[in-house]
Amino acid sequence: MEDSVVNNVVNGCCHVNLKEKNLGLVLKGPEDRKLALEEVPVREPKDHEVLIRMKNVGICGSDVHYVTHGRIGHFVVEADMILGHEGAGIIAQVGKNVKGLKVGDKVAVEPGVPCRSCEHCIEGNYNLCPDVAFCATPPYDGDLRVYFTYDAKMCYKLPAHVSLEEGALLEPLAVGVHACSRAGVGIGDRVLITGAGPIGCMAVVVAKAAGASEIIVTDISASRLEFIKSLGATNTINVVGRTGEDVAEQVKILMDGNHPNKSIECSGAESGLHTCVMATRPGGTIVVVGMGAPVQKIALAHATIAEQSILGSFRYGPTDYARALNLVASGAVKVKPLVTHRFKLEESEKAFELAKTGGEGVVKIMIEV
Amino acid sequence: MEDSVVNNVVNGCCHVNLKEKNLGLVLKGPEDRKLALEEVPVREPKDHEVLIRMKNVGICGSDVHYVTHGRIGHFVVEADMILGHEGAGIIAQVGKNVKGLKVGDKVAVEPGVPCRSCEHCIEGNYNLCPDVAFCATPPYDGDLRVYFTYDAKMCYKLPAHVSLEEGALLEPLAVGVHACSRAGVGIGDRVLITGAGPIGCMAVVVAKAAGASEIIVTDISASRLEFIKSLGATNTINVVGRTGEDVAEQVKILMDGNHPNKSIECSGAESGLHTCVMATRPGGTIVVVGMGAPVQKIALAHATIAEQSILGSFRYGPTDYARALNLVASGAVKVKPLVTHRFKLEESEKAFELAKTGGEGVVKIMIEV
Amino acid sequence: MEDSVVNNVVNGCCHVNLKEKNLGLVLKGPEDRKLALEEVPVREPKDHEVLIRMKNVGICGSDVHYVTHGRIGHFVVEADMILGHEGAGIIAQVGKNVKGLKVGDKVAVEPGVPCRSCEHCIEGNYNLCPDVAFCATPPYDGDLRVYFTYDAKMCYKLPAHVSLEEGALLEPLAVGVHACSRAGVGIGDRVLITGAGPIGCMAVVVAKAAGASEIIVTDISASRLEFIKSLGATNTINVVGRTGEDVAEQVKILMDGNHPNKSIECSGAESGLHTCVMATRPGGTIVVVGMGAPVQKIALAHATIAEQSILGSFRYGPTDYARALNLVASGAVKVKPLVTHRFKLEESEKAFELAKTGGEGVVKIMIEV
Amino acid sequence: MEDSVVNNVVNGCCHVNLKEKNLGLVLKGPEDRKLALEEVPVREPKDHEVLIRMKNVGICGSDVHYVTHGRIGHFVVEADMILGHEGAGIIAQVGKNVKGLKVGDKVAVEPGVPCRSCEHCIEGNYNLCPDVAFCATPPYDGDLRVYFTYDAKMCYKLPAHVSLEEGALLEPLAVGVHACSRAGVGIGDRVLITGAGPIGCMAVVVAKAAGASEIIVTDISASRLEFIKSLGATNTINVVGRTGEDVAEQVKILMDGNHPNKSIECSGAESGLHTCVMATRPGGTIVVVGMGAPVQKIALAHATIAEQSILGSFRYGPTDYARALNLVASGAVKVKPLVTHRFKLEESEKAFELAKTGGEGVVKIMIEV
Repeated sequence: MEDSVVNNVVNGCCHVNLKEKNLGLVLKGPEDRKLALEEVPVREPKDHEVLIRMKNVGICGSDVHYVTHGRIGHFVVEADMILGHEGAGIIAQVGKNVKGLKVGDKVAVEPGVPCRSCEHCIEGNYNLCPDVAFCATPPYDGDLRVYFTYDAKMCYKLPAHVSLEEGALLEPLAVGVHACSRAGVGIGDRVLITGAGPIGCMAVVVAKAAGASEIIVTDISASRLEFIKSLGATNTINVVGRTGEDVAEQVKILMDGNHPNKSIECSGAESGLHTCVMATRPGGTIVVVGMGAPVQKIALAHATIAEQSILGSFRYGPTDYARALNLVASGAVKVKPLVTHRFKLEESEKAFELAKTGGEGVVKIMIEV
Repeated sequence: MEDSVVNNVVNGCCHVNLKEKNLGLVLKGPEDRKLALEEVPVREPKDHEVLIRMKNVGICGSDVHYVTHGRIGHFVVEADMILGHEGAGIIAQVGKNVKGLKVGDKVAVEPGVPCRSCEHCIEGNYNLCPDVAFCATPPYDGDLRVYFTYDAKMCYKLPAHVSLEEGALLEPLAVGVHACSRAGVGIGDRVLITGAGPIGCMAVVVAKAAGASEIIVTDISASRLEFIKSLGATNTINVVGRTGEDVAEQVKILMDGNHPNKSIECSGAESGLHTCVMATRPGGTIVVVGMGAPVQKIALAHATIAEQSILGSFRYGPTDYARALNLVASGAVKVKPLVTHRFKLEESEKAFELAKTGGEGVVKIMIEV
Repeated sequence: MEDSVVNNVVNGCCHVNLKEKNLGLVLKGPEDRKLALEEVPVREPKDHEVLIRMKNVGICGSDVHYVTHGRIGHFVVEADMILGHEGAGIIAQVGKNVKGLKVGDKVAVEPGVPCRSCEHCIEGNYNLCPDVAFCATPPYDGDLRVYFTYDAKMCYKLPAHVSLEEGALLEPLAVGVHACSRAGVGIGDRVLITGAGPIGCMAVVVAKAAGASEIIVTDISASRLEFIKSLGATNTINVVGRTGEDVAEQVKILMDGNHPNKSIECSGAESGLHTCVMATRPGGTIVVVGMGAPVQKIALAHATIAEQSILGSFRYGPTDYARALNLVASGAVKVKPLVTHRFKLEESEKAFELAKTGGEGVVKIMIEV
Repeated sequence: MEDSVVNNVVNGCCHVNLKEKNLGLVLKGPEDRKLALEEVPVREPKDHEVLIRMKNVGICGSDVHYVTHGRIGHFVVEADMILGHEGAGIIAQVGKNVKGLKVGDKVAVEPGVPCRSCEHCIEGNYNLCPDVAFCATPPYDGDLRVYFTYDAKMCYKLPAHVSLEEGALLEPLAVGVHACSRAGVGIGDRVLITGAGPIGCMAVVVAKAAGASEIIVTDISASRLEFIKSLGATNTINVVGRTGEDVAEQVKILMDGNHPNKSIECSGAESGLHTCVMATRPGGTIVVVGMGAPVQKIALAHATIAEQSILGSFRYGPTDYARALNLVASGAVKVKPLVTHRFKLEESEKAFELAKTGGEGVVKIMIEV
């Protein structure tokens, strides 16, 4: 198979050296859960697939979670698994039925291949597909490697002025696009976002691009709140030691006597959801995108009487990646400032070490392959 | 004022005897919370109002709750209050600006007069109006009395073939209409309803009228489940001693391997909500209409990953009463079977005694004024 | 392949005789456009396909249109084409990856196989797929034949109490389900339907099942209007020689001073659309499902000022066939009365002759294979 | 004027004490339809009303239409009528029940007072209210005058950094907000706007604020197209002498092979609607806000097969003015560049002369009172 790739080089583009060793960052499992940079096999693209020379892969909280706990919910690491699902790269080879992509194209890689024939796929919600092959979600390998063979339909060609790093950032941006779409964030909305991590940041930039007039963000980290203001939050509240009722009251004061009509819970904390319920306008919408304790307490009577709509948001659906790309390409959203640290593939362990400890000033860590 | 009413009699209709004493069922408050049948004043109708000779008033759980606890949430009985908000009667006098109603008309009385100018009213959600004057919700008197002066716009003229008792039943039916509308119950839907009390019953008849193909109801009372089958539930599950997961599994079996796509929580119990979350299809909708403990635990991670929509439902909005009436008038819904016990106004205390104790075979208790 | 079919017979069900000649009704094209009952090849099912012994196939206006005009819009008959797309039959052979279907099962056949990977399919609107292979739409053959090899995912297993004829009727019923869903027809709605042909009939039974309280139907045929009353129309209007304004006024009178809030145009006539626009309530919805002259005049200023929503409806989407089946299986809808004439496959030409001429009392013509 | 306001405050009296003459621009009718600057009576504010010292009033096409033709549709000028409905001013007196407004506040004046109790008002669509008292729509006077007594609920307090001229521009901006809301314009959308007049301009700035990535505008005036590019249109097409099919094809090329998913018809021309229908994506939405010939031809079969949604948009609903203000206040939208000409109240006739003739470089004409 290596041969066919090499052959392709001859006709292909000069930016890609197809004789490189196909290194990938492997989470050894399930016992030791060590990280190892190993040579992994390259799979020949099928007719509808492309071979991608990966260039940028961001580290996500879920990658770190698998390394630390070996599982997320019922997804359990039971064998070696290549990490990474926030990736972009350059097309190195193209299957014969692929249209619209050619060798040398820069692409963002949407990290899940849905089955396309279950009821959820057919109804337009492939993020609910039970058979999706999602990068770096057991038992599927991720894309933090040199070469990655993948379904061409899940690759989004980047225009010349969009960088590969921005391409990799489309993944968390698409999460923000999906969450804001579930919430129906639009022109003139007042938005509350609880949690100022990477997803909270993406929710802010998308809400702003969608025309929200006020965006208040809560968190327990002063530095994260400081940073998120630079992304477009109109106000922030440090919620350390405060009740949801108390924070809700301050939100209303900051909004000049109004409630937010849309809230997006990005912290995973029970207190975040409580703040959303207490703050959001009667008839308003609360989207839950943060993942935390499986069972949480909620002020249900308040939510019922206020006829709030509490909506789960999971990954992204059919149009979200494309819309995320449109936002970056049109300049409506700037995602680059989110990358606070960059590492080479060889420094991956160091990168994960930083990701695990977090700390001041860490937002998004990017690996350059 | 009594005079004007009497004068009106002369020109008015013969079914109404306006010289009757205006007895009303008063909850004495706030200390003793005794019930007393007392003569209460008749208020002269303003130009946009009508005077109604009340004929049928159903007893609702909230009436009983005020009698027993003196409060519901932040609504506290702080003075004498006339009970009743599920009423129908005959127009006895008509304000000069009233159109479409005349003396002798049978009307159902929608029990809340919204302010019509707050943001919620203006946006089409008058059930969220903070200034609504709602019958038998402190500090507003209810309509369980002989004469009731009321906003003509909130009176729905009943066609000849719809009885006054059916008119009184439009109130809980409208709750069911609103809940099913929030859920978007429609043709071919699979519906789960947790709780087989009066609201669960109304949810069943509305869901059936809306074209739901399967309606499974859960409860802890065998007799209620037996009764609800007669209303159109396709299957029932007695959940005594069972977990939500277990019940969810049985729902799936009864639905031939399918999940319900819409669920309506009518029990107020935490276990009811848990069953809805575990049973409902990914991407499905759960409407919460039952009121129970203010704070409840919810399987939030499950709901988030499954992108469920959890929607509060409170009372009824602008079109619900009219649609409830349409359903009864067209014959699509039969509400009469819900009335299991009937009492005279003079027997009100006995009626409330039965309502408090509940017991086998009690669904809806109706007072004939 | 014939062998494998025969072998299968041995293990299979007794209702199917797999040694039958595979006759199909072929529209000879494009020059002469004669109908011919010819032996056509049987294609071996692929892993995801089934072989169906067709049993009932209804004749649709589009079949007749191809026979008469050789084209519908840009779909042009350029070669021999087997007709038929309203079919049901019995599974005779099952591909090895097929789940949930076995030899002997009765199935309704949804007549279009979408590509499942274009943007429309992925977004949940496979009826907009430009690459759908739709039965009896050039260049794809239909299912009016003895044996038909088809995608198992588009076959809907019928419960024991649903007949194969009802299975064939799911096709036009699904059109009605889709149109009513586009219109959002629900409990208590007032519905106007212009056109009392088969699609108008299906719109009536679905609207009724969806809880519509009033359904007024217009047409120019007294006998069709008489028939549609038996299906559930609450009132009918014979519009011969009348203007849209005039008919709209009568609709309002019949609806006791109210406008319909939902209208469904099923006639294809410009006057039908005009009636819908003039009659429908401000803020109401008009669904156009009838196909007539490509360019039509519309009272646009009226529709704009009244903020009407005019929505095209084309075929049916991902959930419609299943919901149509649910409606029949639950008894909410009776479709059998629509079949006014039945013919054997050998009498197909006679059946098409009747379909072409139409006439009193012809609603749906069914061919028994 | 400040003096009279001060006096008024000091007196806190129930009568209006005004030092300026209350001049208003009157359309003399119905015969001569001359414009005259006349002294008009000042009406004492009721308890829920305010007296406004008008400061800026924009001229709208409908004002001009009444001057020129004496009618718009069934609205006929049958008596003298004060013109103007795009106004802003300063509160000069406050009725005793008014909350949230005080003398000296700058306000934008939403020009229609709905009845608040008809079915449309109650359902959240007061723009469909048949009894709305709309400024400068017969028989109601407009606000192009010195003093205007008006419902306080329809006045929007402007923050310090929003000018009165911007306040007056909220009216056409709200039309754009409503149209974009009807279309559901959001992040990453591709939008086609036909017509580059004032409403087309407002649609562009709102669509951009709502996150649209591509906005193509068509018109027959090169200078208007040039101007609209400066407002955020990403591309423009001069459609002089071109067919809708031809323009649709070019739209697709400019959108890199994609169709717009949302289109907004702002020209009133039949060719504009035709372009929208031919260009818009299957499943896409077309909003018609432009008013032109009452009856127009439409490619209905195309729209039906493509399942397009064609939605009328009329004026603005309950949240639109507030959202328009939010957009201006947050800086998301700049409306000032639209004002190309300014006149004093005394120069009103000259202003209308210019409005009638239009010509190069005329977008919005503003009268300073």
